[in-house]
Amino acid sequence: MRTQVGIVGAGPAGLMLSLLLAERGIDSVIVEARSRTAIEQTIRAGVLEQGTVELLKQCGVGDRAMTEGARHDGIELRFRGEGHRIDFAGLVGRSVWLYPQHEVLTDLIAARLAAGADIRFECSDVELREVTSDRPVIAFTEADGTRVELECDVIAGCDGSAGISRKSIPASVRTDHFRAYPFGWFGILAEAPQSAPELIYAHSEHGFALISTRTPTVQRMYFQCDPEEDAEAWSDDRIWEELQKRVAGNGFRLIEGRIFQRSVLPMRSYVCEPMQYGRLFLAGDAAHTVPPTGAKGLNLAVADVLVLARALESFYSTGSTERLENYGATASRRVWRAQHFSWWMTSMLHLDPHGSPFDLRRQLGELESVTSSVAGSTYLAEAYTGWPLSL
Amino acid sequence: MRTQVGIVGAGPAGLMLSLLLAERGIDSVIVEARSRTAIEQTIRAGVLEQGTVELLKQCGVGDRAMTEGARHDGIELRFRGEGHRIDFAGLVGRSVWLYPQHEVLTDLIAARLAAGADIRFECSDVELREVTSDRPVIAFTEADGTRVELECDVIAGCDGSAGISRKSIPASVRTDHFRAYPFGWFGILAEAPQSAPELIYAHSEHGFALISTRTPTVQRMYFQCDPEEDAEAWSDDRIWEELQKRVAGNGFRLIEGRIFQRSVLPMRSYVCEPMQYGRLFLAGDAAHTVPPTGAKGLNLAVADVLVLARALESFYSTGSTERLENYGATASRRVWRAQHFSWWMTSMLHLDPHGSPFDLRRQLGELESVTSSVAGSTYLAEAYTGWPLSL
Repeated sequence: MRTQVGIVGAGPAGLMLSLLLAERGIDSVIVEARSRTAIEQTIRAGVLEQGTVELLKQCGVGDRAMTEGARHDGIELRFRGEGHRIDFAGLVGRSVWLYPQHEVLTDLIAARLAAGADIRFECSDVELREVTSDRPVIAFTEADGTRVELECDVIAGCDGSAGISRKSIPASVRTDHFRAYPFGWFGILAEAPQSAPELIYAHSEHGFALISTRTPTVQRMYFQCDPEEDAEAWSDDRIWEELQKRVAGNGFRLIEGRIFQRSVLPMRSYVCEPMQYGRLFLAGDAAHTVPPTGAKGLNLAVADVLVLARALESFYSTGSTERLENYGATASRRVWRAQHFSWWMTSMLHLDPHGSPFDLRRQLGELESVTSSVAGSTYLAEAYTGWPLSL
Repeated sequence: MRTQVGIVGAGPAGLMLSLLLAERGIDSVIVEARSRTAIEQTIRAGVLEQGTVELLKQCGVGDRAMTEGARHDGIELRFRGEGHRIDFAGLVGRSVWLYPQHEVLTDLIAARLAAGADIRFECSDVELREVTSDRPVIAFTEADGTRVELECDVIAGCDGSAGISRKSIPASVRTDHFRAYPFGWFGILAEAPQSAPELIYAHSEHGFALISTRTPTVQRMYFQCDPEEDAEAWSDDRIWEELQKRVAGNGFRLIEGRIFQRSVLPMRSYVCEPMQYGRLFLAGDAAHTVPPTGAKGLNLAVADVLVLARALESFYSTGSTERLENYGATASRRVWRAQHFSWWMTSMLHLDPHGSPFDLRRQLGELESVTSSVAGSTYLAEAYTGWPLSL
């Protein structure tokens, strides 16, 4: 069996790449370990940059994001008990959309299957072979037990941080840039109306909290916790008490409700270097992980595959591998800017458990500088709403 | 002996306060441990914010700073071997002046003495007494051995980080916010022409370097080093080699020359909390230390004493201590913003000896974001040239 681009993984990177390639007349096959139902029903948060939404629309898969997603024209930075709005629309003329990642995936899978795309769900024993040759192979076992060898011109490794693509770059060539943060996020979903019209990023002496939303009746909230925290050990009352004290001030209170989902998320940064090895190209979480504070995960995957799709378009139209060889250098510039932004938002807003009162006061000095300066607020808004995808 | 405001220390804070008070018709006496010659001949670097220069001019002591100092309309951030100019004048319509601190002190001493100010040099055994009463006392021994008790309404502690003022706030009341950085600055003065028209802040895999200037024929340069480094153990050749490799790229080379001064500076951040205790008010380095990367030291001292002089003016004209009681809260907002800015410049540009390649690449991501964004560059320029003094 043969295709032009073999894609490992039907997450945001893999599905979006398949769509961008189809638009360019390039064939692909997606090999995915999970079932379609598992992908569509694993609830994930999602903040889409304006550029991501525009790209989805251009590709004809933005309708539901526009109608069911919520446009947010700003966020609130909350510190010393007071809210300070970062007015994205006013500062940079851009916005973000709250639209969960699993809904993006649902839309992409529907569009790709309707267009006749070849997506193999529930594959096992996936192996990448001969990736340094110009005929690399993805070998896998289909759900019915058939063993398949898929010969490709190029393999796109889009199978996330736990996938096999990253590991297919030999350890002698690969550098794993890894950083674990000394805290996690305690995340909940609660049945309650919205407490505020926009996301709240709260700095407090008790630690960080993020007040987000999923629907008008379901709210998503997080608070900084020990990464080893046991989410099940917390009563609803204790969770609400913790959240309330982190956003307290000026009479503001969260509207409480039944908590029906809770979990602790680790906070990590990771970048794989290089992002290319022979004819294997990593994209999305297979190549990098960001802490969720900057809301960059899905957007970075989309930015990667846009660079890769353009490089592949050049490869197939000219026969030259020049742009493909530049993929890593081009994509990684945005990756490191996003790593910095995610680290910045994280370190500006979280209480460092190994920190001192000096650090807390320095953070407040920074928050005051950022929010009191049009330039500082604009700099943050540019990064949050997303740098131009042509970068 | 009596005065209205007893000032401990004839550094930038003490001398400037004395001048600002005289303008407001308020008497002061300055008590200083060093000789006038020692103060005027201890060579110190100096970058003056535009607001500092404007205040010196308003007070009639800005003539030499304007004629002998050099206006700088920008700086260069250098990374990956390329220079990126931050255009202060174009971005924020402001500049900074390179004019050494000891020259500022020379001008201030001359102006104050010409106006008949009472400055007692070479005092010893200085003690602060009854600072929580409304008749605090500075006791000291004059150069001729006379013991003096100076009764005041208010004492301004302007005697720097090693002075007695800070220690006169009891440990039970005082919080010392301290942070030592795991590197120092190896500083030199060299006989050579300028290598570049503006200051260069260089990030490199070998560590930070700062290329500054003192006169057209004397250059001041620094490079990040171990804080325990022995400056005398370095040959001129080795110093130049180290500096050259940190600024290398694009064919740029420093013009070398005889090195006639060398020393290692520690890098520290410190803030004393509170800045007021009874009738004792700390200002300048007595209250806080910043690492030199943000060029904020002298400017922060000037900002402090402007707040204090205005509070004292209110005290003497209304009899109310309200503004005096707010001194710490008002001054410390700028102090923590400056602490953040100094920490930011330091951590963006220095190689963390305990860091990883992740940190180096994250720094490059940040430097790319800051220099490629008008907003990011403006945010830096606002802080470097100085926030408005009315803050």
